[in-house]
Amino acid sequence: MLDELRRQVLEANLALPQHRLVTFTWGNVSAVDRAQGLMVIKPSGVEYAAMTVDDMVVVELESGNVVAGTKKPSSDTDTHRVLYLEFPAIGGIVHTHSRHATIWAQSGRDIPAWGTTHADYFYGAVPCTRLMTDEEINGRYEWQTGRVIVETFHSRRLSPTDIPAVLVNAHGPFAWGKDAAGAVHNAVVLEEIAYMGLFSRQLTPDLDAMQQTLLDKHYLRKHGKNAYYGQ
Amino acid sequence: MLDELRRQVLEANLALPQHRLVTFTWGNVSAVDRAQGLMVIKPSGVEYAAMTVDDMVVVELESGNVVAGTKKPSSDTDTHRVLYLEFPAIGGIVHTHSRHATIWAQSGRDIPAWGTTHADYFYGAVPCTRLMTDEEINGRYEWQTGRVIVETFHSRRLSPTDIPAVLVNAHGPFAWGKDAAGAVHNAVVLEEIAYMGLFSRQLTPDLDAMQQTLLDKHYLRKHGKNAYYGQ
Amino acid sequence: MLDELRRQVLEANLALPQHRLVTFTWGNVSAVDRAQGLMVIKPSGVEYAAMTVDDMVVVELESGNVVAGTKKPSSDTDTHRVLYLEFPAIGGIVHTHSRHATIWAQSGRDIPAWGTTHADYFYGAVPCTRLMTDEEINGRYEWQTGRVIVETFHSRRLSPTDIPAVLVNAHGPFAWGKDAAGAVHNAVVLEEIAYMGLFSRQLTPDLDAMQQTLLDKHYLRKHGKNAYYGQ
Amino acid sequence: MLDELRRQVLEANLALPQHRLVTFTWGNVSAVDRAQGLMVIKPSGVEYAAMTVDDMVVVELESGNVVAGTKKPSSDTDTHRVLYLEFPAIGGIVHTHSRHATIWAQSGRDIPAWGTTHADYFYGAVPCTRLMTDEEINGRYEWQTGRVIVETFHSRRLSPTDIPAVLVNAHGPFAWGKDAAGAVHNAVVLEEIAYMGLFSRQLTPDLDAMQQTLLDKHYLRKHGKNAYYGQ
Repeated sequence: MLDELRRQVLEANLALPQHRLVTFTWGNVSAVDRAQGLMVIKPSGVEYAAMTVDDMVVVELESGNVVAGTKKPSSDTDTHRVLYLEFPAIGGIVHTHSRHATIWAQSGRDIPAWGTTHADYFYGAVPCTRLMTDEEINGRYEWQTGRVIVETFHSRRLSPTDIPAVLVNAHGPFAWGKDAAGAVHNAVVLEEIAYMGLFSRQLTPDLDAMQQTLLDKHYLRKHGKNAYYGQ
Repeated sequence: MLDELRRQVLEANLALPQHRLVTFTWGNVSAVDRAQGLMVIKPSGVEYAAMTVDDMVVVELESGNVVAGTKKPSSDTDTHRVLYLEFPAIGGIVHTHSRHATIWAQSGRDIPAWGTTHADYFYGAVPCTRLMTDEEINGRYEWQTGRVIVETFHSRRLSPTDIPAVLVNAHGPFAWGKDAAGAVHNAVVLEEIAYMGLFSRQLTPDLDAMQQTLLDKHYLRKHGKNAYYGQ
Repeated sequence: MLDELRRQVLEANLALPQHRLVTFTWGNVSAVDRAQGLMVIKPSGVEYAAMTVDDMVVVELESGNVVAGTKKPSSDTDTHRVLYLEFPAIGGIVHTHSRHATIWAQSGRDIPAWGTTHADYFYGAVPCTRLMTDEEINGRYEWQTGRVIVETFHSRRLSPTDIPAVLVNAHGPFAWGKDAAGAVHNAVVLEEIAYMGLFSRQLTPDLDAMQQTLLDKHYLRKHGKNAYYGQ
Repeated sequence: MLDELRRQVLEANLALPQHRLVTFTWGNVSAVDRAQGLMVIKPSGVEYAAMTVDDMVVVELESGNVVAGTKKPSSDTDTHRVLYLEFPAIGGIVHTHSRHATIWAQSGRDIPAWGTTHADYFYGAVPCTRLMTDEEINGRYEWQTGRVIVETFHSRRLSPTDIPAVLVNAHGPFAWGKDAAGAVHNAVVLEEIAYMGLFSRQLTPDLDAMQQTLLDKHYLRKHGKNAYYGQ
């Protein structure tokens, strides 16, 4: 069942330690099959070195029921579900505690667009969510984590296609893409711009956001109908 | 004698350079056999590359006497002894000079709980001890190092199970766990949150501690009787 | 056609991830054949792991026309062309988004000459260009990027031989040398001094530029007719 | 001639990139044969990957004449000579531009003794020299570099045995030891405490030097006649 998707999700999970985005079992990647309404996600708390295709868990998007796999899915499964249900254009999601993206999340701050590295992938600041309420935390916590991400994008009128990542306040980053590998790619870039942004701000504490014209130019030369980057 | 425990202690010691927690011979790991009242600890000043199971030293917990092994035990042996004698729930201890935990120790500061990475492992700030007195330093120094750790936990009513690490002021970190491998695991996490905390504070100098509700949620979903993380 | 030069350009491109100067496909290296008026450059958006000599693209310097190769050249090709046309002494160019050089670029600041590591390679501060105008960005952007680099060197009377690198404001570094390998060498050094400069300034915010006498001494003992470094 | 010493010096030089203390050919190690009045040092500007025992250059301590070897010795040879001539207890010297030690050197600041990692190896702050005068720089520069190091130790009544390293202002570190390997060991530790010190100061800008009692305790438990660390 979903053999190819499970293989992709396994590979994407294994890419996380290779890119030094995770310590121990801290990250998780999923991907979705929209036609069948199913997602595949990493099992909870299993070491990367020992993980196999069969460990990947298949979950029904609407109900959250496990429909294939013998392991328990990632404890963050409900967050992934909300994002797939609310952001119809995305195909893969990754959650990490990568160091520098997490530093911004812990500080509760957006990462401003401060250069073309950022603009090549994110069409504006990477937003940080508001703090969750005690009710949200004590209720269906992982589901509400997804809800506060969606709220952030809706209330600030952001497009999850143009800004394929978010920082969850006091927690860490989620990134997404058209598939699992694309989500990991964006998680790597997020960590890179989080590092650069941290020390750009140290060097120039009152640094303004980059020029809108330059942001447009770089984002649009790689994305959208007039893109001319790549083969 | 204690062959299996010696093997575990050797492996845990060898894990330190793999996790980049130590330079040269700077760290040490021990584990305890409560039934026999014995601990196994790394020898003093022996290079990791050359270390064997037979180099591990067996020490009587109460007396500090070496009861097996041809090498001198770690110079920090008495600190380990105090911790085993006073914290009955712990099974392994690790001491390192890992860079970022040591930076907090040198600054004499607790590492505040600033995010869920921290909350997943430490149920509150990681405490830093007071400075030791000249008498303590000039007396049984390593034993007194253990005493000031115990004092910190008792006077601040902290549980060594819920906060499995400490910073010794002007010195460096000790971490512990249910066994040697668990102690190394916590030492890795400590270094990670020390790094994140250092630069979270740079980004937001007046950063408040995280919400108590979120700290509860994350710590308790991984620890205690209602935990639901992992398989 | 230009087989040896293509081999050199391929090797220099592959050296970028080895020196940890690039993530994914973010960098590009070129080299020039002055006699034939041709340059060889990396293709756009091709992964380093899969790149072959045949992927290298040959471009006519004056016209920008591709004269050999089946792939599209790097999107930054026009920037390289301007630099070769205006700086007749250089033989190779590299562009990266290496972390610390990019941090200075994002902050819009020159990297001051703060020590002999800098002085061994750069005869003065590494300049940062002015911001580009909306017209330049919306016009022939990559060509204008080259123009603003040239303007920086001309208006500040800098020699591209003595200062073999520049920071493009809000973007990242370009470095060059007598050939492709020399350009990569200078890009590595630039990243090194960008790192050291960033934290030298943190340690001493009002740090003065180094003594002119010491700058002269170190630059001239490695470069020019009285050099005495090396074999 | 001096085969064993040349082998040791080669190995110590090769250890520099392994410990990530040097980029390209930037460092150099030497060792001395006191009985014969000779030193062995790395050749100038030769890549580490290609270096052989035969490349090591034998130099007469008093005259500076090359007495064996076909290559030119390191351009810093005269600095090494002064240190051997003035510090009779040392047997090996290493010079690097390791990142964090160089940051302190570029800032012209001593590295204060801020913790036991420092105290285990350096019996007090690691001193930074004064700036050199134009006359010194324009004269016998490398010799004068040695002289200003010696002046720093003499005028501040420091012992090169107890403080086996120095920062040359606006330049970088020199470290030494009883032989070439010992010098490299101290250079690694210096880089480690330079890193920790840099960020300890960031965390606590007004950090006081550590307690003298603790400095005594740690330095003396590893050094001198009452040492009890190691086997």
